[in-house]
Amino acid sequence: MAPRRILVTGAEGVIGTAVREHLAGRYELVSLTLTPQDFPSHVADISDLDAIRPAFENVDAVVHLAASPAIETPWDDVLRNNIVGTYNVFEAARDAGVTRVVFASSNHAVGMYELDGAPALYDVDDERSYDHVAEIRPDSLYGVSKAYGEALGRMYMERHGLRVFCLRIGAVRANDDPSAPTPNPLIDLNAEGQRNRLRAVWLSQRDCAELIARCLDVEDGSWAVVYGVSANPRRFWDLTHARDLLGWEPQDAAPA
Amino acid sequence: MAPRRILVTGAEGVIGTAVREHLAGRYELVSLTLTPQDFPSHVADISDLDAIRPAFENVDAVVHLAASPAIETPWDDVLRNNIVGTYNVFEAARDAGVTRVVFASSNHAVGMYELDGAPALYDVDDERSYDHVAEIRPDSLYGVSKAYGEALGRMYMERHGLRVFCLRIGAVRANDDPSAPTPNPLIDLNAEGQRNRLRAVWLSQRDCAELIARCLDVEDGSWAVVYGVSANPRRFWDLTHARDLLGWEPQDAAPA
Repeated sequence: MAPRRILVTGAEGVIGTAVREHLAGRYELVSLTLTPQDFPSHVADISDLDAIRPAFENVDAVVHLAASPAIETPWDDVLRNNIVGTYNVFEAARDAGVTRVVFASSNHAVGMYELDGAPALYDVDDERSYDHVAEIRPDSLYGVSKAYGEALGRMYMERHGLRVFCLRIGAVRANDDPSAPTPNPLIDLNAEGQRNRLRAVWLSQRDCAELIARCLDVEDGSWAVVYGVSANPRRFWDLTHARDLLGWEPQDAAPA
Repeated sequence: MAPRRILVTGAEGVIGTAVREHLAGRYELVSLTLTPQDFPSHVADISDLDAIRPAFENVDAVVHLAASPAIETPWDDVLRNNIVGTYNVFEAARDAGVTRVVFASSNHAVGMYELDGAPALYDVDDERSYDHVAEIRPDSLYGVSKAYGEALGRMYMERHGLRVFCLRIGAVRANDDPSAPTPNPLIDLNAEGQRNRLRAVWLSQRDCAELIARCLDVEDGSWAVVYGVSANPRRFWDLTHARDLLGWEPQDAAPA
């Protein structure tokens, strides 16, 4: 049976907000946030396992978005929020009998392909494309924490029977605008490069929400690592695996 | 120029002892240990970055062995000794200008292949074999910490120019005996299964030391993930990548 009551960690963030806006009608959403919000929420720090446990009671699935999201997050925050936090979320889920976790991984788990290939990689006619079996090549401690989260999720799937879906998400923007220049602090890009970059990696809010919904609804399969990117002509991540496993096809596309 | 002065973390452990016994004549070995030993050593806890920094001064390479080694190590120790400790070692190396790290990863980063395949996987005529591109499938939090260490090492290699060699080590025994029954606490094995298991995964002390030496001496290449297992007829990990990259061939073999 499809899960109905869904815990969303990091519900106050950009993706959490998109989830609440797009999926509130499809599921009963329960929020976990670091600080009090203007919507009902369990308020707790994911680095504290006991503090977050109550949020996991009587939920059917978890969408784990809470993390330090910046590429250049320093180690202490990566450790606390992403490494310890993600362990706590999987462990609280297992302990509460929650059997499905959607984990917000990141393209930065394999970000070195972009660092090596940019800016030509963003070109419409560049044929390079990276799929779910591409070798792990994190570009940052942040990226390492996401690769770790995928490995941890795999172990919880295989040893503890959770169903785990890891989404290597591109760039979801608060204003949902695919045309604003977006620097990658690790790459020296001119204005055109920054523009093309977002047009390559952009994931619209509704595509993101629908991808998460597919992970919540899919009946078959216990494991997936897929990319989350809209149908951008400049994209360089493969979408066939997400289509094959989840039936997900992005509906939006950044301009070429 | 080949490195001459080598820091060995966890020099008091089983593999550290093998390294000190077999490689003392080839390199100037510097030891880092958690507690005072009957040999000269920097005494510091690898979970304390500032405490371990002095050990990294004026060394050419690091052999990072210090870790909680048990498959069933609980999370708090995995976090402190394996996750934080390995970050501290890479960071101290980078900061001190050390350009080569040999990282003791583990077969448990991909240990689910064994859990799925045992005990038939140990049979001499079983043809299954797993190589360095096998999908990451940790069998434990310990295994997750080793997959994390590989991802971290990859990032230090690509972003910071370190040369990193990750060894997915089988079973090195204090008594170097390949015939004693060895349980895997995650697998229900009878006496024959336990015997066959060690005969499959055994790595002799001298093979282990030579594998590490090859990583220290190799002139080409900046990255490797290879298996460390002796030439056991029952082995199920691939050795061609280690031979191709490092010129390493195990000299010992467990009985069939």
